Amino acid sequence: MFDSANLDHVVDKATWKKEEPVLREALLKAQLDLAAQKRFPVLVLVGGVEGAGKGEAVNKLLEWFDPRAVHVHAFGEPTDEERERPAMWRFWRGLPPRGRVGVFFGAWHTQPIVNRALGRTTEDGFENAIGDIVRFERMLADEGVLLLKFWFHLTRKQQKRRFKDLSSDPRTAWRVTDLEWKYHRSYDDFVPTAEQFLQRTSTGDAPWFVIPGADEHYRNLLFGKTLLASMQERLAQGAPPVPVDRTPAFPEPVDAVNVINTIDLKKKLSKAKFEKELEHWQGRLALLSRHKRFKKTSVVLVFEGADAAGKGGAIRRITGALDARVYQGIPVAAPTEEERAQPYLWRFWRHMPGRGRFVMFDRSWYGRLLVERVEGFCSESDWMRGYSEIVDFEQQMVDHGYIILKFWLQISQKEQLRRFKERERTAWKRFKITPEDWRNREKWDAYQGAVCDMIDRTSTDAAPWKVIAAEDKNLARVTILKTLVEAIEARLDLSKG
Amino acid sequence: MFDSANLDHVVDKATWKKEEPVLREALLKAQLDLAAQKRFPVLVLVGGVEGAGKGEAVNKLLEWFDPRAVHVHAFGEPTDEERERPAMWRFWRGLPPRGRVGVFFGAWHTQPIVNRALGRTTEDGFENAIGDIVRFERMLADEGVLLLKFWFHLTRKQQKRRFKDLSSDPRTAWRVTDLEWKYHRSYDDFVPTAEQFLQRTSTGDAPWFVIPGADEHYRNLLFGKTLLASMQERLAQGAPPVPVDRTPAFPEPVDAVNVINTIDLKKKLSKAKFEKELEHWQGRLALLSRHKRFKKTSVVLVFEGADAAGKGGAIRRITGALDARVYQGIPVAAPTEEERAQPYLWRFWRHMPGRGRFVMFDRSWYGRLLVERVEGFCSESDWMRGYSEIVDFEQQMVDHGYIILKFWLQISQKEQLRRFKERERTAWKRFKITPEDWRNREKWDAYQGAVCDMIDRTSTDAAPWKVIAAEDKNLARVTILKTLVEAIEARLDLSKG
Repeated sequence: MFDSANLDHVVDKATWKKEEPVLREALLKAQLDLAAQKRFPVLVLVGGVEGAGKGEAVNKLLEWFDPRAVHVHAFGEPTDEERERPAMWRFWRGLPPRGRVGVFFGAWHTQPIVNRALGRTTEDGFENAIGDIVRFERMLADEGVLLLKFWFHLTRKQQKRRFKDLSSDPRTAWRVTDLEWKYHRSYDDFVPTAEQFLQRTSTGDAPWFVIPGADEHYRNLLFGKTLLASMQERLAQGAPPVPVDRTPAFPEPVDAVNVINTIDLKKKLSKAKFEKELEHWQGRLALLSRHKRFKKTSVVLVFEGADAAGKGGAIRRITGALDARVYQGIPVAAPTEEERAQPYLWRFWRHMPGRGRFVMFDRSWYGRLLVERVEGFCSESDWMRGYSEIVDFEQQMVDHGYIILKFWLQISQKEQLRRFKERERTAWKRFKITPEDWRNREKWDAYQGAVCDMIDRTSTDAAPWKVIAAEDKNLARVTILKTLVEAIEARLDLSKG
Repeated sequence: MFDSANLDHVVDKATWKKEEPVLREALLKAQLDLAAQKRFPVLVLVGGVEGAGKGEAVNKLLEWFDPRAVHVHAFGEPTDEERERPAMWRFWRGLPPRGRVGVFFGAWHTQPIVNRALGRTTEDGFENAIGDIVRFERMLADEGVLLLKFWFHLTRKQQKRRFKDLSSDPRTAWRVTDLEWKYHRSYDDFVPTAEQFLQRTSTGDAPWFVIPGADEHYRNLLFGKTLLASMQERLAQGAPPVPVDRTPAFPEPVDAVNVINTIDLKKKLSKAKFEKELEHWQGRLALLSRHKRFKKTSVVLVFEGADAAGKGGAIRRITGALDARVYQGIPVAAPTEEERAQPYLWRFWRHMPGRGRFVMFDRSWYGRLLVERVEGFCSESDWMRGYSEIVDFEQQMVDHGYIILKFWLQISQKEQLRRFKERERTAWKRFKITPEDWRNREKWDAYQGAVCDMIDRTSTDAAPWKVIAAEDKNLARVTILKTLVEAIEARLDLSKG
């Protein structure tokens, strides 16, 4: 990767003076077109060796662009808030919306390279991290993000010279500390690891661009021109890049037996028993939420089910046991304008809980595999890739130590009708029933098929789907509470308590 | 993945008798349409637990289809020929061409699952293998292959019952050996590993389909209908799936300094010195090729360079030192009809050498990054993904123990003109110069830029590019021989010899 960059590249001052204003004007125009089109975001990743001028190049960029519309994020040590959430959360929250440019200093590439160079990870672990990154970046590309990855390079000699030059000038000497020299001494561990990383993570969708950093003018021109070429090419495409459908097709079911219609909907819980059980499980949950060890974990609950299946009621029986300061309920409806300007999962990532907290999603990211699939709100390619993207997403929660449970509340079509009618009769429930509910009902079979595919393809040991018989609300509410309590107790090693 | 498959699915005989003929007719029609369109191949992967009816289902398929146009490959223990080549070679050679259906029993998924279930690989190693497979299958999808992956499933109980049933019938008892019961005992190790594998390798392009195997009719109907649905969907698309261009753009060079024009073309080797050196290095090469330890490795050499750069001459100086039985020279020109019907790298995979052998490619897979890019013979997406696909391809050779060297023969534009003219003047060289050579010459700068990108992005420690000053043919030939000899000596640990 560094063959070209190891050569001496120089741009003289006259050339720079001639070319910079042209580049600057073109970049500003591209930025304005980007903002006007609002079709895609540009995400600029900046990495490289110390002293190669990453900061200077980004400063230049902010001179060239209208800086008010550029979001720059430097990712150093994670903050407390970031440490409490899956590692990728800090990057998700910084993603630029469509029409904007975002610059990430030291993003998801930093840790895998550093850990490998210092021998903290094995070769297999390194490859593994690379695989995660390739999948993540592919998802960004599928979501329309123009991802431009820049690696600022210096040869060993150039780095030494650079540090010496900086040290000898009193105005810049502060920039070269023991840490910089430590980096220099580890050059021969770091750079070959980085090279391997760059090669393995350079895909057609997101290749790395290596920027030689020794000559200021060459560096800035190459950086700016590379950014410009890619922005101009994408802007000229006009239409959004529609993914080609090359996915296999799911067949119609061969029989009527499936994972949601084979559960027993006839069982009931009497009111007296319900009240006793409810009190019992709510009491256990309340204690658990105050347990010392609970402070180290977090709970993510997903509730999905047909309209009127009782998602809200089940959630209220959980929150009823909790202090309002430890939970957040997220009702998921149509995305906001801000959310629509981001990759699909962004609107869910923003709600990832800190330690010792619960988040309940009343409908969730599974909308992509249910309503968006059935109603055709996204392309077949989009929902087909959704299965593995969601498995990846939840795996990140699991790896971070979250407890995650997903409840599918199953009711019969007949019971749904009864509840719809009841809602229409009851003044204070009437707002809950809309023409859309009736329309969705007509697609009952299509939805049920999509639910089965969803459960088959996204239920994992660590983030399982629990199919709940919800025909009887009391039974459903108690079952859910019990499942939740037992999952937390198992995690906190209190199962015998 | 097995939630639905763990349920009892049954299709009664009446339904089967009614539905099978309809399915059969539709499948046969799809096969004929596939052959008529010749736009894409269908590759059916078959995996699953023992006793789940994989063989029976494929036999059924051969009844339904015209079996003459279906290629079935069962991958058991590798043959001698296969063991001498990178692991994926056996699968590449079996790929069906466009317009055909291929069936693979036990393909690239088998080893990773078995090795993990038996504890032969770590979790990281398993994930790593999964990453390789996902990249490989994505490449197949990018190349237009319709990949349909079927996993035949039985519950533990169903498997036991199945083995007992087979054992108790004298006509089938032979099918259940100790090995089958051994598999049954390891069910609880194997199936969860397989489930994890299926989930991690189910992508939008190539999801797994789980086929419950307990009921023969259900199994066969679901298998056939799934295959049919995907074939029909793709056939109905009509036009080939053109990949959307969402790749970043490579910028124009900022200066005139690059990895091929900075080498010294002025050095020469006198005729006398050349003859002495040639004899020396050819002699060492001849001995090496007969060395005992050489029998365990293989050499792949790639020669690229502008027209008349001297590729053929350099190759002849190598082959001159070798026994004709140990090498093969592959001149690469436009692909044949058979080669055009396959994924891009297929035509190169077919020439991978066995142990103790040399293969010299006179032009190579790098055509995708050079002529195909510059002349627009493939889309930008195609050549952009080529960099990482080629790095993956060569990594497989390296992992298998091949010695791989890639020579770029650099000459000046002036020297090329001199050689062209010389060729035109010499009767026995005239056939080597065509109008195309003159046309390529006009795109000199574009080609040189593509060469630099190629070297930067595909030169690795284990499969390096060697830029050879080829202005003087004698010097080039000796340098190449010396580089080759030293690489083999280093590999055979003879460097001091």
